[in-house]
Amino acid sequence: MSKKIAVGILGGTGYGAGELLRFFAFHPQAEVVSVVSSSQAGTAVADAHPHLRGIYNSSFDAELNLDALQSFEHAVVFAALPHGVTTGIVAKLLPELLSRKMKLIDLSGDFRLKDKNLREKFYPETAKCESLQSQFAYGLTELERESIAQAQAVSNPGCLATACILVAAPVVDSSFSGALIFDAKTGSSGAGRTAQDNFHHPKRNSNFSAYKMLSHRHEPEILQGLGDTHSERIKSAFVPHLIPSARGIFVSAYFELPSMMSTAELKQKYEDFYKDSPFVRIVGDSPELQAVLGSNFCDISVQCRGKQVVAMAALDNLGKGMASQAIQNMNCMFGLPETCGIWVPGMGPI
Amino acid sequence: MSKKIAVGILGGTGYGAGELLRFFAFHPQAEVVSVVSSSQAGTAVADAHPHLRGIYNSSFDAELNLDALQSFEHAVVFAALPHGVTTGIVAKLLPELLSRKMKLIDLSGDFRLKDKNLREKFYPETAKCESLQSQFAYGLTELERESIAQAQAVSNPGCLATACILVAAPVVDSSFSGALIFDAKTGSSGAGRTAQDNFHHPKRNSNFSAYKMLSHRHEPEILQGLGDTHSERIKSAFVPHLIPSARGIFVSAYFELPSMMSTAELKQKYEDFYKDSPFVRIVGDSPELQAVLGSNFCDISVQCRGKQVVAMAALDNLGKGMASQAIQNMNCMFGLPETCGIWVPGMGPI
Amino acid sequence: MSKKIAVGILGGTGYGAGELLRFFAFHPQAEVVSVVSSSQAGTAVADAHPHLRGIYNSSFDAELNLDALQSFEHAVVFAALPHGVTTGIVAKLLPELLSRKMKLIDLSGDFRLKDKNLREKFYPETAKCESLQSQFAYGLTELERESIAQAQAVSNPGCLATACILVAAPVVDSSFSGALIFDAKTGSSGAGRTAQDNFHHPKRNSNFSAYKMLSHRHEPEILQGLGDTHSERIKSAFVPHLIPSARGIFVSAYFELPSMMSTAELKQKYEDFYKDSPFVRIVGDSPELQAVLGSNFCDISVQCRGKQVVAMAALDNLGKGMASQAIQNMNCMFGLPETCGIWVPGMGPI
Amino acid sequence: MSKKIAVGILGGTGYGAGELLRFFAFHPQAEVVSVVSSSQAGTAVADAHPHLRGIYNSSFDAELNLDALQSFEHAVVFAALPHGVTTGIVAKLLPELLSRKMKLIDLSGDFRLKDKNLREKFYPETAKCESLQSQFAYGLTELERESIAQAQAVSNPGCLATACILVAAPVVDSSFSGALIFDAKTGSSGAGRTAQDNFHHPKRNSNFSAYKMLSHRHEPEILQGLGDTHSERIKSAFVPHLIPSARGIFVSAYFELPSMMSTAELKQKYEDFYKDSPFVRIVGDSPELQAVLGSNFCDISVQCRGKQVVAMAALDNLGKGMASQAIQNMNCMFGLPETCGIWVPGMGPI
Repeated sequence: MSKKIAVGILGGTGYGAGELLRFFAFHPQAEVVSVVSSSQAGTAVADAHPHLRGIYNSSFDAELNLDALQSFEHAVVFAALPHGVTTGIVAKLLPELLSRKMKLIDLSGDFRLKDKNLREKFYPETAKCESLQSQFAYGLTELERESIAQAQAVSNPGCLATACILVAAPVVDSSFSGALIFDAKTGSSGAGRTAQDNFHHPKRNSNFSAYKMLSHRHEPEILQGLGDTHSERIKSAFVPHLIPSARGIFVSAYFELPSMMSTAELKQKYEDFYKDSPFVRIVGDSPELQAVLGSNFCDISVQCRGKQVVAMAALDNLGKGMASQAIQNMNCMFGLPETCGIWVPGMGPI
Repeated sequence: MSKKIAVGILGGTGYGAGELLRFFAFHPQAEVVSVVSSSQAGTAVADAHPHLRGIYNSSFDAELNLDALQSFEHAVVFAALPHGVTTGIVAKLLPELLSRKMKLIDLSGDFRLKDKNLREKFYPETAKCESLQSQFAYGLTELERESIAQAQAVSNPGCLATACILVAAPVVDSSFSGALIFDAKTGSSGAGRTAQDNFHHPKRNSNFSAYKMLSHRHEPEILQGLGDTHSERIKSAFVPHLIPSARGIFVSAYFELPSMMSTAELKQKYEDFYKDSPFVRIVGDSPELQAVLGSNFCDISVQCRGKQVVAMAALDNLGKGMASQAIQNMNCMFGLPETCGIWVPGMGPI
Repeated sequence: MSKKIAVGILGGTGYGAGELLRFFAFHPQAEVVSVVSSSQAGTAVADAHPHLRGIYNSSFDAELNLDALQSFEHAVVFAALPHGVTTGIVAKLLPELLSRKMKLIDLSGDFRLKDKNLREKFYPETAKCESLQSQFAYGLTELERESIAQAQAVSNPGCLATACILVAAPVVDSSFSGALIFDAKTGSSGAGRTAQDNFHHPKRNSNFSAYKMLSHRHEPEILQGLGDTHSERIKSAFVPHLIPSARGIFVSAYFELPSMMSTAELKQKYEDFYKDSPFVRIVGDSPELQAVLGSNFCDISVQCRGKQVVAMAALDNLGKGMASQAIQNMNCMFGLPETCGIWVPGMGPI
Repeated sequence: MSKKIAVGILGGTGYGAGELLRFFAFHPQAEVVSVVSSSQAGTAVADAHPHLRGIYNSSFDAELNLDALQSFEHAVVFAALPHGVTTGIVAKLLPELLSRKMKLIDLSGDFRLKDKNLREKFYPETAKCESLQSQFAYGLTELERESIAQAQAVSNPGCLATACILVAAPVVDSSFSGALIFDAKTGSSGAGRTAQDNFHHPKRNSNFSAYKMLSHRHEPEILQGLGDTHSERIKSAFVPHLIPSARGIFVSAYFELPSMMSTAELKQKYEDFYKDSPFVRIVGDSPELQAVLGSNFCDISVQCRGKQVVAMAALDNLGKGMASQAIQNMNCMFGLPETCGIWVPGMGPI
């Protein structure tokens, strides 16, 4: 019986699955055993992900091959399915997985919000399976390592939420109150693989616009992540924008410190906060997408002027914002070093 | 009664219609009277074309407003509808237009091929209306000015075909024989406004690939345009590729001269050939998309090495490859200067 | 003697001059008479601006041809030179121009700041010619029409400042106080034509980063434009970012209203404020770059949530942010309709 | 004494070095010991390559640390220096390396051409060190595995040449004669890290143009690689073009078969030819850049129509076209599996 961790993936044709597969190609302790696509069952994985040709020679399974997973000492299933659809599938699958001592990491938004009212507002399809919610730990690794390590099921954070929480967490603690503005910018791949009008190439090329201004469902997730779910102290504003590029998230956060601090002092505070988090790099100038694309890194900078602060974060929405953070969580859940298999440099000039 | 030319446009929400409207904003002798969209009737033209907000304040008509067109001394209808669909619509419309002494310019491919067998192969939906075909002149303005000037109906050329015919015509005359290779590159807007998998932004950004290699329907159109419809003398090969950009066509044509020529001599031959064609600019170095985007210009260069030639052309697929060439044809049909309203510079750095 | 306005341009090879020339191709009341480039004197204008080939057939002059300008009834000179360099050149030129009853519009930053201390801090090279400063009106057309109409010399606003001032002006009046955050994004052409490391194509393609965080010299210009030069009431924060695209500025402004307002009410306030400003379009959803690129339009949207507001503006940094606003100012200075020659639609999908 | 291969790198700030470092992060048998930059000595490697922050914590050496290299059982030096400059540096370095039993892999063009006349024409700076030339094997791995395995010094192929040779080699053997046209397209990073006018971001964004038409120095290298250095049988034409993207090479090759073949038959011939070359993937439809960027793969397709063929290849100019092919050669030289450390998937949607 293999000592490796067997990996199953649901939603195999999507970008999330593609990135999981790309990162698992580097992982010495895990082996991808079953990749499921209900729509493409039987076709080659590499047909959906041509960059994986030769790396993966298998085909999509119609259903999760639980017996194959069972033949390993450990197993984990990654659900990389659309929001809303996920709840029903997980409701059926999770008891079976737990009975087999397998773990689950969900990449959708269905299990992220702990507050029932917010969940009903932003993820109405999840209402039918309320009881599942309590079983999920929230997988923002840097902030939740201990609960993740104990969990059988983890809900992977939203890509934009990951950047916003990481960029604010060192300052926004229980003593923080006031305005906290997140101006977020994201590449087009965040919208997923399915063609749609607003992501038609001629529409997005050389374009830039905002969407869901002050009404995006990552905002309550950010507040929850920062410990103020009901916005009692934090007066947040969150506006996402679309960059004319396929990958990457860049967040500029604006807030006030209770008292003046130099940039060097605040930088030190961030470095201290993340000193045990190898994937968070505090940089001196502005972060930049080219330094993080393809990787699990999140680069953060801070600038102070009096009490004013602009703190900025850059990460890959499909990497730290999705697939590689999910593997980082897997590493935590199985007691592996957090960096195992995902200590991968970004791609540099792209 | 206005002395201007009344303009009607079918297919009002598409990129072709958007560009017609953009260019007509500059045209002193024409006035857009009716823009038809069956799916968006009643909504503002500027909702579909936000760059035209303020410039056009009208809404889409459900049907062509023939009476409004009739109230002008002259009228022309531009059909900017999908291939295949066009034939049926034009079959109903054309007799009515002709009886009202109105002209028609069709931007689809349905009336471009004169050879029945080729047409049946590449545009099978046109078979039901064979009799219409003879009424259309082929609208490659620089080569067909006289027949266009006489025509009541003009079929506007394909965007790729326009570039290929213009780049080869000065050399490929009735005495030419041999291989003629067109390596064509086009932006994504050539695929039209409707979202589709292969033109999803994350799929095309930073990507480059070919499509319909040696099987694209612009190849028989090119051969027809060069006077060798049945490929008796010209051994053509035509391969289109997709540039990670929204606009522009760039064609590199490779062929052999019957005898050696210097680059300067061949350049002179091209300049002579196009001396009365203000929109064809013969350039010394490589053409470039930035010099033509947004305009009706086609920039051409030639380089010789012994008998070998590479001739290159750049144009805007939505401009000279589509909408502004259609207006150029309109100018010819109504006896206006060819440049009227379309002597518009490209946009420079984009 | 021609009744047209004779136009002279300094800094002829730069992007600013290129855009002035592009827009003047549409202007019925102006004629470009002399384009100066000290480095490229004698070479064709179209060599530096290949998109203008055929449109302009002249060559660069080594010096401004004042006699040719004088032969028109009216004349204006556009200085499109680098910051710092401009002051010295204008110091020599302006008296001559004024004595000849010619006007001057300067596109550099040298004459924008009215406060001496700020000017010395942000534009130290201008110190030598303090006396010139009072002769310049500030050319943010929508807010300064009257003083522009009276001025012999106009200082054209910064591209980022134009967007920030326009997006805030309807709300930020003398009664406003509090935080006002401008998260600005700009294309690479704002850095000018000269190659430099940070604008090397492989460095900027697919990249996104910020620069001059909380220290950019457009911030004092914005405060001046909003009537609070010394930041007594407005607590501003201004951070510019680089979009992986060549053209366009998009600004998201965050602030609080003194009392709650619905989005519809605030939108109406903006519409009222700009009701006589045809180039400012108040839009319902997010503005987008594709709607404004190539044009003089500035599209603005507002969204409210309680007292919170995000207001966003999009414009072309080389158009409304530079060259076409300079022509808009020229129109004001010469009593022409503000839209004359620049009522040009944007380019749509690019 | 470490059994690993010690790696030294010259030209440490360039893109070639950056990619070598990125790939070596995956290599289990090699360790980077000394990265040299004469201009940036003492500064952190990660300052020049921000995507490598945390992965590499060392600084640039002023000179190659030969003693550190010597402390390993094996050592190799990669010269990633500009063309022309390389010759002089290698002339001094190579004897020293060989005396220490270290190997050299050169990424410049200085040692690629075996024919003295061609070399003098295309690389005139190499004339002073003629005697070095014979010591270099030509490192197109798939075709030269045996000589590479024996060599102490390898000259890594040109990026464009790699694609052209690989796409033609299965058909263009000693029996081939006739026209062979390579229409090549490349991203901007091929021009290297130094800012220059033609690679200024606003100039290349949304642009497309050709350069060095029929006169690029990779053409003789291609002919040499195909065994017809003096173009006695092959009538080649090679034209490179610039894609508005930073990475990737796509080559479309046009030629005629001596007799008709089906696409399936020719595809089989290619598969047979490359059956022992894991990095060459023969694909059914068009190759695409997104499938190869970031990797050492070269994807190839063929299409036949009668005797006509279009064969197309896609690769990453900094990967298989440069750094990862150099490591592939290193693997050959040291008897490692060819895939060791470079069996890395491409990045998928970028």
